[in-house]
Amino acid sequence: MERVSLERKVLSENDRIAAELRARFQEHGVLCLNFISSPGSGKTSLLERTLACLPKGERVAVLTGDIQTENDANRLKQYGFPVKQITTGGTCHLDARMIERHLADWRLDRLDLLLIENVGNLVCPSSYDLGEEAKIVVLSVTEGEDKPLKYPSIFFKSQLMILNKVDLLPYVLFDVAAAEENARKVHPGMEIVKVSCLKGNGLDEWLTWLEKKRQAQREKQPAAVR
Amino acid sequence: MERVSLERKVLSENDRIAAELRARFQEHGVLCLNFISSPGSGKTSLLERTLACLPKGERVAVLTGDIQTENDANRLKQYGFPVKQITTGGTCHLDARMIERHLADWRLDRLDLLLIENVGNLVCPSSYDLGEEAKIVVLSVTEGEDKPLKYPSIFFKSQLMILNKVDLLPYVLFDVAAAEENARKVHPGMEIVKVSCLKGNGLDEWLTWLEKKRQAQREKQPAAVR
Repeated sequence: MERVSLERKVLSENDRIAAELRARFQEHGVLCLNFISSPGSGKTSLLERTLACLPKGERVAVLTGDIQTENDANRLKQYGFPVKQITTGGTCHLDARMIERHLADWRLDRLDLLLIENVGNLVCPSSYDLGEEAKIVVLSVTEGEDKPLKYPSIFFKSQLMILNKVDLLPYVLFDVAAAEENARKVHPGMEIVKVSCLKGNGLDEWLTWLEKKRQAQREKQPAAVR
Repeated sequence: MERVSLERKVLSENDRIAAELRARFQEHGVLCLNFISSPGSGKTSLLERTLACLPKGERVAVLTGDIQTENDANRLKQYGFPVKQITTGGTCHLDARMIERHLADWRLDRLDLLLIENVGNLVCPSSYDLGEEAKIVVLSVTEGEDKPLKYPSIFFKSQLMILNKVDLLPYVLFDVAAAEENARKVHPGMEIVKVSCLKGNGLDEWLTWLEKKRQAQREKQPAAVR
């Protein structure tokens, strides 16, 4: 009982900071996206593919979370955009305080798009608002089509499901229609894009989704600042 | 600070119950194994393959954890052994109290092997002792060879790493030698077995490992009870 109320307190402190972050992102017209998946579903590969497609001058930055190692930041830095690793040292998720701290020396008025790669974990990150405009859940076809039913919270809270590694479909037992049906059982109207980061399938559709969101975010920005 | 000390208290209460469970398992010569992995790495498939290979009369039972659904218990029940689903309802790991509660109406003196499938999560379950003799981490070749470095705790604490889905090696970028090296960087002397639950590769080696552990557990049992 004591533990539950303390967790609530921790979460509501997180929500307070997340709300401040969200207000700052909106003020500066920054689209912030929070990518969540199991370990190894391909979040970093998706971000690599995305950064590789963006013109060099784009005002894009990445925060990438892991329990240990700087591997992902090192992979992502080669695309020429600012990237910071958030090493949680054991914590199973990113929280709003970590985002706030790692943004402290970046100027939001010089940014249009902030991509946050969460710790690989399909459970805990779903409870922590980071001030993002949308959560995006990445599911790999190697993980089984029942995952939306087993881990409903993150599928319920995500605006988009990216079904990744579709190039492996001939070699695994995975029913794409059932996966989509399960995702929409948990989250009716869920948007779904099927991609292969390895082979390139579906990336156009993902980039179109992203551009539409960026346009919508620009339109939200107060007229005086635009 | 308050939160940290409360988490310590919760963990030490867990450790107390886990120690009691461990003593009971040893008294009755029950080998208890705790399977941990990311969602969709193939824990349930591995247990299905294992149960299918055991003679019907074997004194084996399974506890399988998930946040939602009875899917895994339904898959595992068809092999004729007692199976119970532990549905955590949101909690990201199994704890010793859940194991104790779900064992309450099973007689340990009629059991030799208890297989526990944890919630799919490579982070949180590693902090909760369930009274098991050994943790076994399952890593799929689709997840990338860097996972032991990124999620060191579970690889450090596991006696055995099962590298699953090796049938997919021709279709993914995965360096087996690097994965083994990374696992042994975190956990020198880590035992590793490579399997494909889909095609059957390596299952003999896994069953030999299991039989060796069962024999060792039998030898630990007090002579009077044997």
